[in-house]
Amino acid sequence: MVTLNVPLPGRAYDICIGHGILKEAGTRCRGVLPKAKKLALVTDSNVAPLYGDMVQKSLEQSGFTVHRTVIPAGEASKSMDMLMHLYEEFMDFGLTRSDAVVALGGGVVGDLTGFAASTILRGVDFVQIPTTLLAQVDSSVGGKVAVDLPSGKNLVGAFWQPKLVLMDPNCLTTLSDAIFHDGMAEVIKYGCIMDADFFHLLMDCGGRKGVMEHIEQVLFSCCSMKADVVLQDERDTGLRMLLNFGHTLGHAYEQAYHYETYTHGQAVAAGMVAAAELGVQMGVTPPTVAQEVREAVRCYALPEKIACTMDAYRGAIGLDKKGEGDEIHLILLEEMGAAKAVKVKKQRLFALLGEGYGA
Amino acid sequence: MVTLNVPLPGRAYDICIGHGILKEAGTRCRGVLPKAKKLALVTDSNVAPLYGDMVQKSLEQSGFTVHRTVIPAGEASKSMDMLMHLYEEFMDFGLTRSDAVVALGGGVVGDLTGFAASTILRGVDFVQIPTTLLAQVDSSVGGKVAVDLPSGKNLVGAFWQPKLVLMDPNCLTTLSDAIFHDGMAEVIKYGCIMDADFFHLLMDCGGRKGVMEHIEQVLFSCCSMKADVVLQDERDTGLRMLLNFGHTLGHAYEQAYHYETYTHGQAVAAGMVAAAELGVQMGVTPPTVAQEVREAVRCYALPEKIACTMDAYRGAIGLDKKGEGDEIHLILLEEMGAAKAVKVKKQRLFALLGEGYGA
Repeated sequence: MVTLNVPLPGRAYDICIGHGILKEAGTRCRGVLPKAKKLALVTDSNVAPLYGDMVQKSLEQSGFTVHRTVIPAGEASKSMDMLMHLYEEFMDFGLTRSDAVVALGGGVVGDLTGFAASTILRGVDFVQIPTTLLAQVDSSVGGKVAVDLPSGKNLVGAFWQPKLVLMDPNCLTTLSDAIFHDGMAEVIKYGCIMDADFFHLLMDCGGRKGVMEHIEQVLFSCCSMKADVVLQDERDTGLRMLLNFGHTLGHAYEQAYHYETYTHGQAVAAGMVAAAELGVQMGVTPPTVAQEVREAVRCYALPEKIACTMDAYRGAIGLDKKGEGDEIHLILLEEMGAAKAVKVKKQRLFALLGEGYGA
Repeated sequence: MVTLNVPLPGRAYDICIGHGILKEAGTRCRGVLPKAKKLALVTDSNVAPLYGDMVQKSLEQSGFTVHRTVIPAGEASKSMDMLMHLYEEFMDFGLTRSDAVVALGGGVVGDLTGFAASTILRGVDFVQIPTTLLAQVDSSVGGKVAVDLPSGKNLVGAFWQPKLVLMDPNCLTTLSDAIFHDGMAEVIKYGCIMDADFFHLLMDCGGRKGVMEHIEQVLFSCCSMKADVVLQDERDTGLRMLLNFGHTLGHAYEQAYHYETYTHGQAVAAGMVAAAELGVQMGVTPPTVAQEVREAVRCYALPEKIACTMDAYRGAIGLDKKGEGDEIHLILLEEMGAAKAVKVKKQRLFALLGEGYGA
């Protein structure tokens, strides 16, 4: 059992990581929510049958009145319609500003529920219990919450910090290999941009089984690195950009295949390999580093390359929120464990992509 | 021309008050938004024909590309559907995180547009140009933005501070007496809770004409008082409660008549008289003070009393966001210009209301 404190001024919170911690959800929530009477528990149709009863019972044993809302599993639930549904459920339940909302599930549940918590009654307390590897290492740190619009993913959102995050590595045992590896892309990313030793630990682990032997350390390291970045740049204006390594091209791949063929992690994996190749072309990334990125991606059964048309690249990168006019920030590796943002003309990027670099 | 600086840490902004300032919208926006290229201008069907062209032209002359969205005037536009419409307009316009949103209109336009600005792309800059007295003295200071749900008003929202507020008293000349007086209820409220001299100035003004002779001072004083409170309590946890003087019962009146028969200001006016009477009954408010509140309300053609059933009181106060369980904070006057929050059992409040006090 390890605890990481995220010391945001005025809104410090703990990330508690431990096997079996789900059963302590009640006492741990009570610790940070001494006055709350009602908890709106939101989960999805995959997670509810596995952990819904256990978590609800634990919360009730600590004196909370709990109302559970189960949304359909999948990205389609991260919509304005589902948001409206949550608002109505919260109001019918009689939630007040001294109560709280609990998200039990993966990234979709966390993002949607967190955004609902950030806006209902102008913001209520929020506890996150991420159950996938991706949600544990990525979407549960940093306070980014969002819903999708028909015109794009995560276009509506807020920054809303949780009061508490509980991570139970036991939840990961019920994930398919595909979903586990999906999360590994982000794990590898942290090594690439911030910590060469951590990257090499992942290579030594050699696969899912090896990672699970070090899982508390892996989760702690990823959250700790992300927390360091977020603390220095809470509103995503500079440093936090480094966390987008692999994501600009990754988003293009996701969008090109309508978010259906490849998972986020698969797209990011191919995006990291592509960004490493671009870095080599631009004289920023040593070729050996690009090779290591490729090997890590391969080691966790993630795609090294995803075919993408120039039209799809243009469509995705033109719309990218990070874009400011004609230029875009690309995150490139200077060495293993060290990234920097490089401003490039979109035209130059498209030219390199057209010549096959990064693709 | 007067300027009030609201020195919120990290998000300080100016409220600029002056006759004819609408024509300076472009240069003033450029001053606080040096990098923005696009401005999404949101206004309503009442305001667009009066000031839409003037403001848009001024913005364009300062080099902004402007897209104007006109929503139907009226509270019904403060909905999730209209919010979704704004999001789509912003995305079709190609708004980026370095651009901004401008609200030109009354409270509905300001609240809805501000909430859209606070959530699109996880928050973009926001300029407010309030055109009604109520919006100028109330909803444009404090950062509260919101939309309504079918189950209640302002149930979804955020705290989002503007980059700039522009107030042109000339806009007030096109308001009907009813809408002008609607705003006066909040103006009177500031005098009641914070400044006896200001209250007596309003009495000396004797009506709309007299107020307009001192309008820059009146707007400055109200915004300055609200800013003082907000600075001490940005997230509405304690002191800011005092701004709710007249609002708990006022909300009950608005709700009892389905937000149709009485305006917000009319309901607040009757709510202030009722709260003053309750204060007298509870031994907190001197009878002479209650009488002064009654006279001020009468002076600005606002209702001293609104009939309300006990069921309507119970329905409204049970749901009130300020309520925490069985008790509620009532804002009472200790003397003219000094208010305090008093915790009372809802049962006692209902008993007093049932006996006719405050009703």
